[in-house]
Amino acid sequence: MSTIEKVLTRIDADLDNSLSRLFDLLKIKSISTDPAYKDECRTAAEWLAKELTSIGIDATVRSTAGHPMVVGHRKSGKPGPHVLFYGHYDVQPVDPLELWDTDPFEPRIATREDGTKIIVARGSADDKGQLMTFVEAARAFIAETGDLPIDVSVLFEGEEESGSPSLHPFLTANKDELSCDLALVCDTGMWDADTPAISIMLRGMVGDEVIVKAASRDLHSGHYGGAAQNPNHIVASIIAGLHDENGRITLPGFYDGVIDMPEEVTAMWDKLGFSAEDFLGDIGLKYMRGEKGRQALEHIWTRPTAEVNGMWGGYQGAGSKTVIPAEAHAKFTFRLAGDQDPDKIRDAFRAYVKSKIPADCTVDFIAKDGSPALRLDFDMPALAKGQAALKAEWGKDAALTGMGGSIPIVGDFKRMLDMDSLLIGFGLEDDQIHSPNEKYNLKSFHKGIRSWARVLDELAKD
Amino acid sequence: MSTIEKVLTRIDADLDNSLSRLFDLLKIKSISTDPAYKDECRTAAEWLAKELTSIGIDATVRSTAGHPMVVGHRKSGKPGPHVLFYGHYDVQPVDPLELWDTDPFEPRIATREDGTKIIVARGSADDKGQLMTFVEAARAFIAETGDLPIDVSVLFEGEEESGSPSLHPFLTANKDELSCDLALVCDTGMWDADTPAISIMLRGMVGDEVIVKAASRDLHSGHYGGAAQNPNHIVASIIAGLHDENGRITLPGFYDGVIDMPEEVTAMWDKLGFSAEDFLGDIGLKYMRGEKGRQALEHIWTRPTAEVNGMWGGYQGAGSKTVIPAEAHAKFTFRLAGDQDPDKIRDAFRAYVKSKIPADCTVDFIAKDGSPALRLDFDMPALAKGQAALKAEWGKDAALTGMGGSIPIVGDFKRMLDMDSLLIGFGLEDDQIHSPNEKYNLKSFHKGIRSWARVLDELAKD
Repeated sequence: MSTIEKVLTRIDADLDNSLSRLFDLLKIKSISTDPAYKDECRTAAEWLAKELTSIGIDATVRSTAGHPMVVGHRKSGKPGPHVLFYGHYDVQPVDPLELWDTDPFEPRIATREDGTKIIVARGSADDKGQLMTFVEAARAFIAETGDLPIDVSVLFEGEEESGSPSLHPFLTANKDELSCDLALVCDTGMWDADTPAISIMLRGMVGDEVIVKAASRDLHSGHYGGAAQNPNHIVASIIAGLHDENGRITLPGFYDGVIDMPEEVTAMWDKLGFSAEDFLGDIGLKYMRGEKGRQALEHIWTRPTAEVNGMWGGYQGAGSKTVIPAEAHAKFTFRLAGDQDPDKIRDAFRAYVKSKIPADCTVDFIAKDGSPALRLDFDMPALAKGQAALKAEWGKDAALTGMGGSIPIVGDFKRMLDMDSLLIGFGLEDDQIHSPNEKYNLKSFHKGIRSWARVLDELAKD
Repeated sequence: MSTIEKVLTRIDADLDNSLSRLFDLLKIKSISTDPAYKDECRTAAEWLAKELTSIGIDATVRSTAGHPMVVGHRKSGKPGPHVLFYGHYDVQPVDPLELWDTDPFEPRIATREDGTKIIVARGSADDKGQLMTFVEAARAFIAETGDLPIDVSVLFEGEEESGSPSLHPFLTANKDELSCDLALVCDTGMWDADTPAISIMLRGMVGDEVIVKAASRDLHSGHYGGAAQNPNHIVASIIAGLHDENGRITLPGFYDGVIDMPEEVTAMWDKLGFSAEDFLGDIGLKYMRGEKGRQALEHIWTRPTAEVNGMWGGYQGAGSKTVIPAEAHAKFTFRLAGDQDPDKIRDAFRAYVKSKIPADCTVDFIAKDGSPALRLDFDMPALAKGQAALKAEWGKDAALTGMGGSIPIVGDFKRMLDMDSLLIGFGLEDDQIHSPNEKYNLKSFHKGIRSWARVLDELAKD
């Protein structure tokens, strides 16, 4: 029996104990947004540090201005890549509590009508269950072989659900300690219950708020209507002119650096059987917006966008008020793809906006920090190893997916620690994270542990 | 000496007494919006009824659900037109009181550096001073000749500054009593301090609120950006498409019934020396918006408009929120001119809006009542008589003006009582109505009284 087979056999045999340990962690009410649970957050951090240390990963609780970090290391200069595993031990609040079938902090195994076994508790999927898949894989490896096959560091934070205010200072202060060859991030999901996934690209973002000012005060639309500029109309024309009739964004140079996916990728995505009808049907819509002639998944993962997240000007109350407002506002965000440069996009946007401002009106901008899109090199060895590990465990090719939104930690690792992230997770769309009756499939937990053991094993290979 | 000359001589001789009576009325704190002044409103009504009756216009105080009306008549079936004079005895609140140089209800005569004498008090211009110009003219006529030259009815209301809630029921209940050949309305102003004016057209209005709904809930712009419809963009495209590059409104049939002014009118307006620079400069703007190739005064008085008085959708707070909102809103008003039909305009607008709604989105509308524009027939005999009277008094042709906004009473008289209104008033732009230190020029008061005497005299002629 090969080493990895022995490790997997141990994982299977130890599953009940693994579950029991997960339940201990799930019972800790580590709600980071509510100061009433400050002590419980520290308890969770201490529990994890002790657990890691007990299995042979030397870990400490590290105080921050907010909730503490847990940092652990087991490294001896092995030849393979040194990886940093990231997860978070804090959870979302549980209200409305009355919508939970049972106490959110009393974890239980339930069996659905179709036979699926699920772990029900706050944090079961986001992120304690996912985080423990890695811890249990490491435990089995060390218990079976006396060591891990590669050098491993661990970073668990306690503020992911409250905006990670301590993360930047902590990464800056501990840059040398935390900079590894590769990050493993488990805060993502499977493609579906049978198909594992690795997220290989994340869209970037740049934002700007526009404030258009016309008259020096609000005007009566009877006295000034038709004669004085109306900022509502100016803002509307800015928004309306951003897209052409084919759904393309009209800013000059906007698509510079945007990359068409290789045919092998779009072909793979075609096979995923993604249903735009279901995707949109869930939110009461039917038809894909966006550029014409693009695959549905391209719209979500690889194409840049321009969206107005908020706009306002003039009277919003009941009834009517015949006012021409002195100013109007809009908040724009652009999702970025490929090598689009956030600064150049903002410059092009501002030049466009200024071209729409009448000579006797003014415009002000409020910038929102931008970050470029991220993507893994398709030829990156760790990616191929991750794919091999997941295929061995699940019997199916891992879907290489994009993500429309950002995972801030991945950008932070890239930009602050110059470290790529392999995004592998076992969550499912119906896990109800952030909602009542959050669950994590027992199969996700069990095969998640096995998957990480295989990933560690593969990463150690030449 | 002709009759009118005798009447005018009497007016001049009696000016101090006229002022004394005006001061008595100005001392009454008839603030209609503040319930604390309810009794003072009735006091003002009773004062007016007594005053009218004392000069020979049989008047009574008529209770309503709100503040009372004063209705008076002096009619004996004279051959000339039977006129209804309208004014209001209520005034605006006086706060901020500390910005008044003296007690707003202690009227006084002040002399400006340039020698102009002004009557300072709340209500001096709006509308007690104006209203009393007519009362004093009637008093002089009756005192001098024993009668008025035409049949006269009077209607004074006490709720003009609080939206006239009792007016419609009162006009409906007293339709026969109040329906005359012509209304005289003195709630308007002069063109400038030397030039009298008659307002001959008022723009109409129709309004609609648009609510565009897309997804069944607010969406994350990372997950759905570029794929799901964004109602902010839909509303913006509706607004932006309403005008073409020449400032014309694009709704099919929108300009049906809009009338170009006769050349004699635009030529007259050219001579008024209206300065678009000053008009816009006062509000911090420089350039006339609106249709290209139109005279500045046309934009304000005779051209229809489309204005968005309010629009909103999505996040308006500080910072950014990456949301695609489920719905967005805009409130539109159209100022109407000529014979534009409010119902047809609304129909055309709604058809246009619907054409902009994607197949998987919906739109709802909230209608605001419409009213067509009003204008006097250029050949109306009473208009020529009013012009003749004003020219005789002021030595200058009266400016025939439009008004961009509406004066509700004029529409009510037209639609409920089938009665045109001759709009003559002696207010000036610097009267500071609704503001601290409201004033009315002594010259406006004195020559206003003389003007009304001349108007009554002219209207009696064949």
